[in-house]
Amino acid sequence: MTTLNVGKALNLATKLLVRAGLPDGEAETSARCIVTSDCWGIPSHGLMRLPFYLERILAGGINPNANMKKVTDLPSLVIYDGENGLGHWQLQQAAYRATALAQRNGVAAVGVGRSSHCGALGIYVWPMVTQNLVGIAFSTGPAVMPPWNGSSAMLSTSPIAAGIPTAPPTIIDLATSAVARGKIAAKAQAGEALEPGWAFAADGLPTLVAKEALTGLLAPLGGAKGYALAVLVESLTGVLVGPSLAKDIPDMFDSKQAANPQEISHFVIAIDAARLSVDGKHDRIAIFQTEVTQAGGRLPGSGRVDPADLVETNEIVISDTIWTQLHVWAKRLGVSF
Amino acid sequence: MTTLNVGKALNLATKLLVRAGLPDGEAETSARCIVTSDCWGIPSHGLMRLPFYLERILAGGINPNANMKKVTDLPSLVIYDGENGLGHWQLQQAAYRATALAQRNGVAAVGVGRSSHCGALGIYVWPMVTQNLVGIAFSTGPAVMPPWNGSSAMLSTSPIAAGIPTAPPTIIDLATSAVARGKIAAKAQAGEALEPGWAFAADGLPTLVAKEALTGLLAPLGGAKGYALAVLVESLTGVLVGPSLAKDIPDMFDSKQAANPQEISHFVIAIDAARLSVDGKHDRIAIFQTEVTQAGGRLPGSGRVDPADLVETNEIVISDTIWTQLHVWAKRLGVSF
Repeated sequence: MTTLNVGKALNLATKLLVRAGLPDGEAETSARCIVTSDCWGIPSHGLMRLPFYLERILAGGINPNANMKKVTDLPSLVIYDGENGLGHWQLQQAAYRATALAQRNGVAAVGVGRSSHCGALGIYVWPMVTQNLVGIAFSTGPAVMPPWNGSSAMLSTSPIAAGIPTAPPTIIDLATSAVARGKIAAKAQAGEALEPGWAFAADGLPTLVAKEALTGLLAPLGGAKGYALAVLVESLTGVLVGPSLAKDIPDMFDSKQAANPQEISHFVIAIDAARLSVDGKHDRIAIFQTEVTQAGGRLPGSGRVDPADLVETNEIVISDTIWTQLHVWAKRLGVSF
Repeated sequence: MTTLNVGKALNLATKLLVRAGLPDGEAETSARCIVTSDCWGIPSHGLMRLPFYLERILAGGINPNANMKKVTDLPSLVIYDGENGLGHWQLQQAAYRATALAQRNGVAAVGVGRSSHCGALGIYVWPMVTQNLVGIAFSTGPAVMPPWNGSSAMLSTSPIAAGIPTAPPTIIDLATSAVARGKIAAKAQAGEALEPGWAFAADGLPTLVAKEALTGLLAPLGGAKGYALAVLVESLTGVLVGPSLAKDIPDMFDSKQAANPQEISHFVIAIDAARLSVDGKHDRIAIFQTEVTQAGGRLPGSGRVDPADLVETNEIVISDTIWTQLHVWAKRLGVSF
C-alpha cells in the first residue's frame, strides 16, 4: 500500500483527465469526486477507477467533449442527453439543477441519459443536502444480478443514495445487491477472498473467488426485497431514461469494450425539506438525530466529509497496483508525478 | 378459516365504517383498500385490521369527520394536515393530487401529516401507475426497529411501495424491516411461530414467539442497509412531515391507546414516465419486462388486481377470530351480516 496526499491526488487526477481531453472545470470536478470516494473509505470507486476512465476516454468509449443537451424541460423535470461524457460532473450538474428547481417548486427530478460511470453515488446528494433538501440518487451500470428466481444478469448493483439535511448530513449510499460490484473488484485487485453470500459464479453457484464473481452474478439484498428495489432503480434509469438497459451496458473493466460507450443513465430527486412540515415545526430532525444516538445507534454516513471541503494535507491509501498504474498513465500522458 | 365473498366483504366493511361515523364516500374508499389487501394475499393489512379501526374511531383516536387541510401548496409539492382521519382515503387522495401535479410539471410529491394507518402501501401507487406515472410511497408507524447497533425502537417497519407502469403494472411493496409487523400480528392471531431472523424480544434476544415479537423489536432488512433505507423512509414521513416520530406513534392493536391519535405521516412521489426518455423511445419498458421473463424471473406484484376492479364474486379467506370479531362489531353497530 502507498499513502498519497489528498492535494497531490486531486492535482494528479485533474491533470491526467485534462491531458486525456476533458475541459479543465470538468476534469477538476471529476477528480474531486474520484478522490472523495477514497477519502470516504470507498476505494473501489476512487482512484482505482481512474486508469479505466482514461483508457475509455482515449479509446472513444467516453467522450471528453460531451455537453449536456437538455431534451426535456418541464417545471420540475429535466432530462439531459449526456453525449457519452464522464458521469461524475454530469451527475453533479444534475444535482445542482434539481436543487434549483426544487427550491422553486418544492420537488424536482433530473435525469441524465447516455452518460458514463459516476463513481460513488452518495457524492451527488451533497449539492442538495447542503441546501437543506432531501436528495435521492439512482444510477445503473452493467448487469450483474439476476431477477429473483432467474438465472441470467438483468440488473446492475442498482445503487440508491440519499442525503438527509441533519447536521452533519446523513448520507445513505447502498447497492441493492448484497454487496457492490466495486467491492468485489477491490477484493480481486487486492487478491482477497469474498465473504459468503456475496456472489455467484457464472454457473449460478456460490463462490468466494472474487475474479469468478466478476464474471458471475451478484445476489440481491435480502432476496426478493432487494430484487424489487433493484427493479425500481433500473426502471428510473435504464428502462425509462435510457438509452441502455443494464443488460446492454459494457463493463468498464473490460479493455476490449473500452471503445463502446456505456450509455448509462442517472436520476436524482430533490425535495425541499423546509416545506414538508405539517405543523410548522422544524426541530424534529434534531430530535430524531439525538434520539438515534441515545438509542445506541448513529445516522448513516455522518462521518463523511463534504466533497467541497476535502483537506488537502490529509492522506489516502491506495494499493501498489493502482500506484503503478497511475505512474504508467502519468508517463503516457506526459504528466509529472 | 371462513370464506367470504368480495362483494359482501366490501359491503360489510363500508357499512361498519359508515355506522362508525365516516362519510359514505370515504367509507367506500377505505373498505375497498382494506378488502384489496385480502384479495392481494396480505391479510395482515386487510379485514383483520377493521375491528381496530372501528375501535379507534369510537374511542376518538381516529377522527371520522376529518378533512384534508392543505398547509403547503407549491407547484410540485402539497402537504395536507390529515386531521387524524383514517389513512386509506387520505393517501388515495394524496396519490390523485400527486398524479395531477406530475402530469403538469413532470414530477410532484404530496405529504399527509397527522393521519392514521393506511393498510397495504402498495395500493396507493395504483392511481399513479394507471396514469403512466412511476409512483413511490412511504409511510411511518409505531417504532418497532432499533437503529443499527442500537437497542431501543426508533423506526417503524418503514415501508416503501412503488409502481412501474408496465402492463400489467409492477407493484413493489416492502418493509425495510426483515418482515412487516403485520405479518407477525397475523402469525400471533393465527397462533403460529415466526421464522428465525424476523424479530427480537423486548430484551433484544431473538424470538420465534409472535406475541413476544409484538412487544419487542424487528430486525432491519440485510442489517445496516435496511436500517439506512428505514432512515430515509422515517425522514420523509415522521421527521420532516410529522407531527409524530415513529417512536411516539401509539400501537393500533393496543386498546388502551385507542383514544390517542396516531398522527402518522405518509409521502408519495409521482414521476411522469412518458417524459423521461432521453432518446424518445418508449419500448424499453416492454423489452425489460420480456427479458426479465426470459431470464426466468418475473416483475414484482404483476399478479395483483387493480383495487378499482375487484371481482365481487371472488372469495377471500379470513380467520375464524376475525370472522367472530366482525360479527361482534356488526351487532354492536347494528349492521346486518
